[in-house]
Amino acid sequence: MATDLEHVRHSLAHLLAAAVLKLYPGTKQSIGPAIEHGFYYDFEFPSPITEDDLPKIETTMRKLLKDWKEFSHREVTADEARTEFKDNPYKLELIDDIVAKGEKLTLYTCGGYTDLCRGGHVEHPSRDIPADSFKLDKLAGAYWRGDEHNTQLTRIYGLAFASGDELNAYVQMVEEARKRDHKVLGPQLDLFVFSDLVGSGLPLWTPRGTLVRNLLDDFVWSLRQKRGYERVEIPHITKRELYETSGHWDKYKDDLFRIMTREEHEFAMKPMNCPHHTQIYARRQFSYRDLPQRYANTTMVYRDEQSGELSGLSRARSFTQDDAHVFCRLSQAKEEFLKIWDIIHEFYGAFGFSLAVRLSRHDPAHPEKYLGDPDKWKTAESLLEEIVREKKVAYIDGAGEAAFYGPKLDFLAKDSLGREWQVATIQLDLNMPDRFDLTCTNEKGEKERIVMIHAAIMGSIERFLSILIEDTAGAFPLWLSPVQVAVHPISEKHAGAAGEVAAKLRMAGLRVEVSTGDETIGKRIRASETWKVPYSVVLGDKDIAAGVVSVRKRGGEDLGQMKPKEFLDRLRQEARTMT
Amino acid sequence: MATDLEHVRHSLAHLLAAAVLKLYPGTKQSIGPAIEHGFYYDFEFPSPITEDDLPKIETTMRKLLKDWKEFSHREVTADEARTEFKDNPYKLELIDDIVAKGEKLTLYTCGGYTDLCRGGHVEHPSRDIPADSFKLDKLAGAYWRGDEHNTQLTRIYGLAFASGDELNAYVQMVEEARKRDHKVLGPQLDLFVFSDLVGSGLPLWTPRGTLVRNLLDDFVWSLRQKRGYERVEIPHITKRELYETSGHWDKYKDDLFRIMTREEHEFAMKPMNCPHHTQIYARRQFSYRDLPQRYANTTMVYRDEQSGELSGLSRARSFTQDDAHVFCRLSQAKEEFLKIWDIIHEFYGAFGFSLAVRLSRHDPAHPEKYLGDPDKWKTAESLLEEIVREKKVAYIDGAGEAAFYGPKLDFLAKDSLGREWQVATIQLDLNMPDRFDLTCTNEKGEKERIVMIHAAIMGSIERFLSILIEDTAGAFPLWLSPVQVAVHPISEKHAGAAGEVAAKLRMAGLRVEVSTGDETIGKRIRASETWKVPYSVVLGDKDIAAGVVSVRKRGGEDLGQMKPKEFLDRLRQEARTMT
Repeated sequence: MATDLEHVRHSLAHLLAAAVLKLYPGTKQSIGPAIEHGFYYDFEFPSPITEDDLPKIETTMRKLLKDWKEFSHREVTADEARTEFKDNPYKLELIDDIVAKGEKLTLYTCGGYTDLCRGGHVEHPSRDIPADSFKLDKLAGAYWRGDEHNTQLTRIYGLAFASGDELNAYVQMVEEARKRDHKVLGPQLDLFVFSDLVGSGLPLWTPRGTLVRNLLDDFVWSLRQKRGYERVEIPHITKRELYETSGHWDKYKDDLFRIMTREEHEFAMKPMNCPHHTQIYARRQFSYRDLPQRYANTTMVYRDEQSGELSGLSRARSFTQDDAHVFCRLSQAKEEFLKIWDIIHEFYGAFGFSLAVRLSRHDPAHPEKYLGDPDKWKTAESLLEEIVREKKVAYIDGAGEAAFYGPKLDFLAKDSLGREWQVATIQLDLNMPDRFDLTCTNEKGEKERIVMIHAAIMGSIERFLSILIEDTAGAFPLWLSPVQVAVHPISEKHAGAAGEVAAKLRMAGLRVEVSTGDETIGKRIRASETWKVPYSVVLGDKDIAAGVVSVRKRGGEDLGQMKPKEFLDRLRQEARTMT
Repeated sequence: MATDLEHVRHSLAHLLAAAVLKLYPGTKQSIGPAIEHGFYYDFEFPSPITEDDLPKIETTMRKLLKDWKEFSHREVTADEARTEFKDNPYKLELIDDIVAKGEKLTLYTCGGYTDLCRGGHVEHPSRDIPADSFKLDKLAGAYWRGDEHNTQLTRIYGLAFASGDELNAYVQMVEEARKRDHKVLGPQLDLFVFSDLVGSGLPLWTPRGTLVRNLLDDFVWSLRQKRGYERVEIPHITKRELYETSGHWDKYKDDLFRIMTREEHEFAMKPMNCPHHTQIYARRQFSYRDLPQRYANTTMVYRDEQSGELSGLSRARSFTQDDAHVFCRLSQAKEEFLKIWDIIHEFYGAFGFSLAVRLSRHDPAHPEKYLGDPDKWKTAESLLEEIVREKKVAYIDGAGEAAFYGPKLDFLAKDSLGREWQVATIQLDLNMPDRFDLTCTNEKGEKERIVMIHAAIMGSIERFLSILIEDTAGAFPLWLSPVQVAVHPISEKHAGAAGEVAAKLRMAGLRVEVSTGDETIGKRIRASETWKVPYSVVLGDKDIAAGVVSVRKRGGEDLGQMKPKEFLDRLRQEARTMT
C-alpha cells in the first residue's frame, strides 16, 4: 500500500534520473524504486563517477524540480516504447518482460523527462516536494537484475522525508548510530572480539564482556527463580531424529550445522532448545500436582548463516539464548504467561526501555507453513487475545508472524535513538507436546495432553547487548559496568591511600581499578571516561588530610569531596535501582 | 615383569582347563592368560554351558588342586607338539606361529594336565595357592584371536588373589560398586537422563542435576576468583584453521565432530578450549605488567566417540570442562602452578578425597608424538620437578604421560572403595604460545614469548560427578544436596506448621521440600532416605506444642527434638565445613 511519502520518493527517483541524464549524456538508466528512507536509481555511466559528483547531481535535481509541475502519462504500444528507448538495452529488456506478461506499457513524463513506469508519483513535484527534504546519500555497485553475471551498474542512493526537519533528524540519528555502532564500541570497550582463525560470526568474550553477560543472565535468573523456575542443562548436539520428531528438520535443515559422525549417524548442532527440553520433561510421568515444570537454560545455539548476512552481535553464527520452557496444563497457561510478562516488564524497565506488544498470529492463507490443525490455533490465539485484553495494553496485530508451532506475544523495545527492536517473546505451543506425546496424569488418573510455553527475556544475550551498547553508547548502568569505580592517586605518594580506598570499596562488593604509573592525572581521568567507568575518585594531599575522596561522575559532573562512607552509600543506592 | 600373583593366576588358568577337560571331554582349549584380578581361559565346548555350570567346575578345580604338586616342563619339537595337540586346531595354529617366529616350543605339565605354554607358574600349586583364594566369576563369548570372522569360543573368567580375605574384599568391593553404579544411581536420583532421540553419550541434565553441577562449578569458581581469575566465554565451533595452527587437527581430526558449512568451509566442534582462549589473549598486545592473564571457562567439549566405548558420564560424547588457562611469563609459572595446586587441594579436601600426584613427562623415544624441540621440554619438565620437590610430596613418575604440547602434573583421587581416578591436571605449555605467536612487551619494550598453563580442577563435571556419586552412593554433603531438608507433617492438620518451618529454613537459604498427601509418615521418611536427603524433620502435635522439630539424619540416626534455631545453627555449621 503506497503512502504519500512513497510517492515523493518514487518521484525523486525520476528526478534523479533526469538530473543524471542531463549532466552525463549517454548514461543509460535502468530501474529506480522508492525504498525505506528514500530511493535509488541504477545507471550505466559512460565513464565512472564518484561520491564527489553527488553534490553536483543534487544541485541539478533541485534546479530541475522548480520546473517539474505535473506528471502526465500515456499508454503506448510495444513498438512506441521500443522506439522511445531504442538505445537503452535495460529498458528494452523490461519492455519485453512487460509484453510477455501481457501487461500494459505506460510512459510517465514530467519536466521533459520520460520514463517507463507503472505510476505512483506526487501530482505536482515542485509543490509537493520541499527542496530541503531530500539529499543524495551514497554510491554502490549493483548488478543488473541482481545477477553477478550481468553488467555492474552504479546505484545512487537518496534520502527523502516529508520535510527538511525530518530529513535532518534522520541524518543526525544515523550519524549518532554510527558513533554508537556496537561493532566498533564493543571491541573498543574490550567486551568481545572476533578472530580470523575461529571465523566470522563467532564472537569470543573477553573478561569484561563475560562479566556483563553473566550479570545480565544473573538478573534474568533472579527474576525467574522467584517465580519457581529451575535450571536445566543440555548438550549442544543431537541426532537428527530429535528434529524430525519436532518438525524442525523439515523446516530448517538448511540452516543447521550438520555433522556426520564416524559411525555415519547424522547429528546437528542445536539451533534452538525446545526439542532437547521436551526430553527432560519426558523422563518421568508427571502428575498434574507436579505442574508447571519450568525449565530455564541459558545456552548457545547455532545457525549456518551466510557470510554476507552476518553483522556483529546482531546476526551471528553462534548466540546465547536465555531460554525457558514451561510445561503445564492449558488451564495454567494464562497465569504462566502473565508471570513471564512481569519478568519482561521488570527487566526492560531496569534499562528504561519502553515496550510495545505484538500478538503474532498464524496466516490462515498459508496453513502449510504451520504445524497442527486449525482448532489448536484457534484455542491458542484466543488465549493470547484474552491475555492482552486482560493486561489492557494496546497491541499490534501481527498476522503471519507466529512461530510454526504456535502464536506468540512479541515485545518491541524502542532505544534512545528511537529505533525499534524485537526483543522478548512468549510463545504458546499446542503442537510440540503432541509430536513428543507429552502428558501429565490428571485428577482422574488419566493421561492428559499438556501445553508448552516458550519464553526468552533477552532473546539472545548477544543481540540484547548490541542494542544496549548502542542505546547507552557503552555507558552501562552502575550495576552492569565491568569497572564501577576508578581510583586515581594524584601522584605516586598517594598510591597507598588509593589502595586503601579501593580495598574498602571492593570489600563492599564493588569492581574497582586503581590507576598507577607514569601518566598525568588528567590523562588517567580521560582514560576512565573512554572506558565509560561510572565513577572516578581522585586522591591527593588535601583529600587524604581531610579523610575524603574527590568524586567525578561519568560524563564529567564533579560531585566534589565526600567521606568514603557517603560515597559508598550513594553507590549502593544507585546499584539498587536495578530492580 | 611377573609378580607372584601373576604366577598364581596363570597357574589357575591351567587348573581351570584341566577341570573343564575332565568334566567336558572333547572340549578344545585355546589360550588362558593371567589378567588384572584373575585369569581366563577360552574354550570350544562340545555343547554350550551356562553360568550355572561354574560352581561344578570350581569344585573340580579345588579337588584337582590337591594333587597339583609341581609343574614340570620340557622343550619339544614341532612334530612332538603337533602330536600332543593333534585334535586341537587352536593349539595347532599357535604351534605354527611359534615355529614361524623361530621360537622354542615348551610343554608344561602339572597334575597330569599338559599345556602349550611359555611358563610363569607357581612352583607347587597345592602349597602356593590357598583353596579359598580364587573363584570362577562369569562367562563371556570371545572370538578366536579377537576376530569376528573366527569361531566364537566360550571364555570363563576367574578371580584370584593372594588370600581368601583379599578375594572376599575384592568381591565385596565389586558388589558395592555395582550398587553405587552412577549409571543406575544418577537417573534414580533424578540427576541426569539419556534420550534415544538425542542420542547416546549425550546426557541431559534435570533440575536436580543442574543444581549440583552449578554448585560444583560455583565452588571451583570461588576458589579461582580469590586467586585473580576472570571468566571468558567462547563459541563451541571454529574454522579448522584454528586447530591446524594449534596442531590439534593433525593429531585428533578423527575424534572431532566436523561440519561442512553451506558455504563449504570446514568447521569443527571444539574438543578442547585452549586454542579459542589463545585468540582472546591475542586481541591485545599485553604489557608484562598486565600478566598473568587468567581465563576461566566452564564449557562443554565434544568428541566423536565410538558407541561401544561410551559409559554413562565417565565416557560421553559431550562433557563439561572446568577449564582455565593462565598466560604468563616463564618466571611466573611456578607461582601460578602452586596457586592451582592449592585450589585442587582445597577442592578435593572438601570431599575427603586423598590425592596422589603424577609428574607426566614426554617419552624421549617418541619425539614425533610431541610438539616443539627437546630444549623446551627440558625447561618445562625441570620446572615441574622443581615444583613437586618444593611441595615435598612423593610423586609418581609418568614417563610418556605428557600432553602433546607439554608436561603436566596429574592428580589421582582414591575413592571410598579404594579405586583410583585421574581427576585434576595442571599442564605447562611452551609450544602453543609459539604456534600462536603469543607475547608480552617486557621491561625493555621488546616482545617476549610467554607460556601457557592449562588447568582443570574437576577435569570434567560429568566425570567428577560419576566419581562422587559412586564414592558417596549418592549421599552428597549437605551443601551439595539438591534437597537439604525434607519436612514431614505427621498428618494434614500439621501441614500449616510444616509450611512455616519450611519457610523459615528457606529464608535462611536452604533447599527444602515439604511432603503432603496420602502416604503414611513412615513411607514418606523412607522416600526421603531413598532420595538421600540429609535431614528429615517430623512435625506432630507434641512438636508443635513444644515449639520444636524432631530431626532425623540421613542413614537413620535420630537426633531428637530441637528448637528450629538450634537445627538451623547445626545446618549452617555443617554447610560451612565445605571450605
